[in-house]
Amino acid sequence: MDESNIKVLGICGSLRKKSLNMSALRAAEELMPQGMSMTVAEIGDLPLYNQDVFDAGLPEPVQRFCAQVRAADAVLIASPEYNFSVSAALKNAIDWGSRVPDQVFFDKPIAVFSATNGVLGGPRGQYELRRIFTSIWGHVLPRPEVFIGNANSKFDAEGRLIDEKTKEFLAALLKGFKVWIIRMHHK
Amino acid sequence: MDESNIKVLGICGSLRKKSLNMSALRAAEELMPQGMSMTVAEIGDLPLYNQDVFDAGLPEPVQRFCAQVRAADAVLIASPEYNFSVSAALKNAIDWGSRVPDQVFFDKPIAVFSATNGVLGGPRGQYELRRIFTSIWGHVLPRPEVFIGNANSKFDAEGRLIDEKTKEFLAALLKGFKVWIIRMHHK
Amino acid sequence: MDESNIKVLGICGSLRKKSLNMSALRAAEELMPQGMSMTVAEIGDLPLYNQDVFDAGLPEPVQRFCAQVRAADAVLIASPEYNFSVSAALKNAIDWGSRVPDQVFFDKPIAVFSATNGVLGGPRGQYELRRIFTSIWGHVLPRPEVFIGNANSKFDAEGRLIDEKTKEFLAALLKGFKVWIIRMHHK
Amino acid sequence: MDESNIKVLGICGSLRKKSLNMSALRAAEELMPQGMSMTVAEIGDLPLYNQDVFDAGLPEPVQRFCAQVRAADAVLIASPEYNFSVSAALKNAIDWGSRVPDQVFFDKPIAVFSATNGVLGGPRGQYELRRIFTSIWGHVLPRPEVFIGNANSKFDAEGRLIDEKTKEFLAALLKGFKVWIIRMHHK
Repeated sequence: MDESNIKVLGICGSLRKKSLNMSALRAAEELMPQGMSMTVAEIGDLPLYNQDVFDAGLPEPVQRFCAQVRAADAVLIASPEYNFSVSAALKNAIDWGSRVPDQVFFDKPIAVFSATNGVLGGPRGQYELRRIFTSIWGHVLPRPEVFIGNANSKFDAEGRLIDEKTKEFLAALLKGFKVWIIRMHHK
Repeated sequence: MDESNIKVLGICGSLRKKSLNMSALRAAEELMPQGMSMTVAEIGDLPLYNQDVFDAGLPEPVQRFCAQVRAADAVLIASPEYNFSVSAALKNAIDWGSRVPDQVFFDKPIAVFSATNGVLGGPRGQYELRRIFTSIWGHVLPRPEVFIGNANSKFDAEGRLIDEKTKEFLAALLKGFKVWIIRMHHK
Repeated sequence: MDESNIKVLGICGSLRKKSLNMSALRAAEELMPQGMSMTVAEIGDLPLYNQDVFDAGLPEPVQRFCAQVRAADAVLIASPEYNFSVSAALKNAIDWGSRVPDQVFFDKPIAVFSATNGVLGGPRGQYELRRIFTSIWGHVLPRPEVFIGNANSKFDAEGRLIDEKTKEFLAALLKGFKVWIIRMHHK
Repeated sequence: MDESNIKVLGICGSLRKKSLNMSALRAAEELMPQGMSMTVAEIGDLPLYNQDVFDAGLPEPVQRFCAQVRAADAVLIASPEYNFSVSAALKNAIDWGSRVPDQVFFDKPIAVFSATNGVLGGPRGQYELRRIFTSIWGHVLPRPEVFIGNANSKFDAEGRLIDEKTKEFLAALLKGFKVWIIRMHHK
């Protein structure tokens, strides 16, 4: 890995166009420390994981997504919380990525954060993600944690993050993430 | 609810044709105590949950699925475990069901079990399901728990359950489920 | 159970004298709907659970605690969160209660809430408690959930709850709890 | 850290004299790769965590325990599962260790395994431990996982591990742990 050019793949767990998590991911991109850059993955066109489909040949969107994860030095996930757990769209992308022979998330440094309109900001989904990545040897940054509660009040109509406290939290997460990425790539 | 004719909706978390969880669900149907019957839901054709799609009008497969849950007195879930958590297909069905105005899983008695080829038989996914249903006021039978590990050795080539111990465990689960369904419908 | 005289046992997961969770439990006592009353258990003098001690004869404090749970129609737990999970003192009391032959928490209606000085108010500990009680067939009220974050700003120097919003949340929890207790006692 | 002399502190979550987890921990000591050695901590004499006690001055057993964690390069935990979660004794030790100013578990490489007489071998407690250590920046080895189910059949009357498969699993865990310890100490 080139430490002056760390490539991060962003994944957003919500599929709607005006997703606040996507807005938060875009805000994170701007707040990244020098030497990091981000591409955002598309996961809405992956079919529901089905082993029969897998056996018949990897669908093109899955191939594209896996190639993106493979090319990234690290993965940053902004994840809403549906019914106290991760969204189906996000779990689906992770499951596809874990089934290909090289298990694309294997040994990747990962960071997660979440935005919800509820007051808590998504903790249950984050702990679920942590356990999921344990199973596929993905290394999730332990801390700081970022929970963006009451998210609809923290972005303007164009989806720009306008809450200064949240910017500080995200910047701290990204700073810690950079150290974590470098640490986990040293072996 | 007519206690002599309890209608159960079966949901299988795996989409593949020869799913062992679907086989286990079929076995459960045969082992049900008198006075219970089961229909099995189709969840593989639900689109990935997306609020924009929801706002544009409920897709036909979602309408069909929600009507099936609504018509059932109880829900029985056979769930594989992918990467230490529930399958995307199952989470997706639950998320759709929770978003319609009458929240179709609300106050339903629910039982879960799981079959996996691994040795443990799916505990992590089951506890995740329990938490998910807490959020939508679904009442999951606490015990007995059924984990069908090494599942491929317990069904024959036609998908018939051939392991006597597993039959006993499933029968005990269903017996307890009937009591639980009646209890939770008494208010 | 006498529905006009529902006896609740309160358990506080923190042992310190000026515990905010104990203050919250006392506030809950005052906010209870008519027909409910509360006694608060002492758990700080239970020895650490050890099967050798159990086999040598149940220590007096354990006998006292188990008798209190046994005599109660329901259990209300106010629980801090230490290191993303329940306090050792609370887990210890639950473990002792589950080991006696009649498993004193068996089939009890239970409600949990939590107060912490952190912003989230204790969700991780609450979900852990929910799973723990599943294992011993204790029936935890699914909702509403109450998380008292920034708790030190919500009580006065004498430990009286002074935050009106929190009073409303607690009152709603207790109202729902009463319905749940009656429902779970009807069989 | 001297990589040819890695000092591991063993912690057993069960307090009884003939604990199978302690037996498993002793077996692990014999199976360690060259260059690792183990000391076993005593946790049964720590008082229940109570902030008032903490404020009055750290009890001697807590000081001793914290010094042992501090001196270790890594921590190996053998943990029973009580009521679907960690034992109070183990949680208590972790909570004390996390409250001292230098948070003795901070940045430590950690591995966990579990032995139970039940068939599953303790998974729920292990995932709880993983979340707990996330909160205090302890780095738990993701895999392999070791669950010793039906544990009473796998040790002889003197507590010696006699099951060859279990020895292989433990040896694989320890081999992976050594690599993990070295990796996490490189920064």
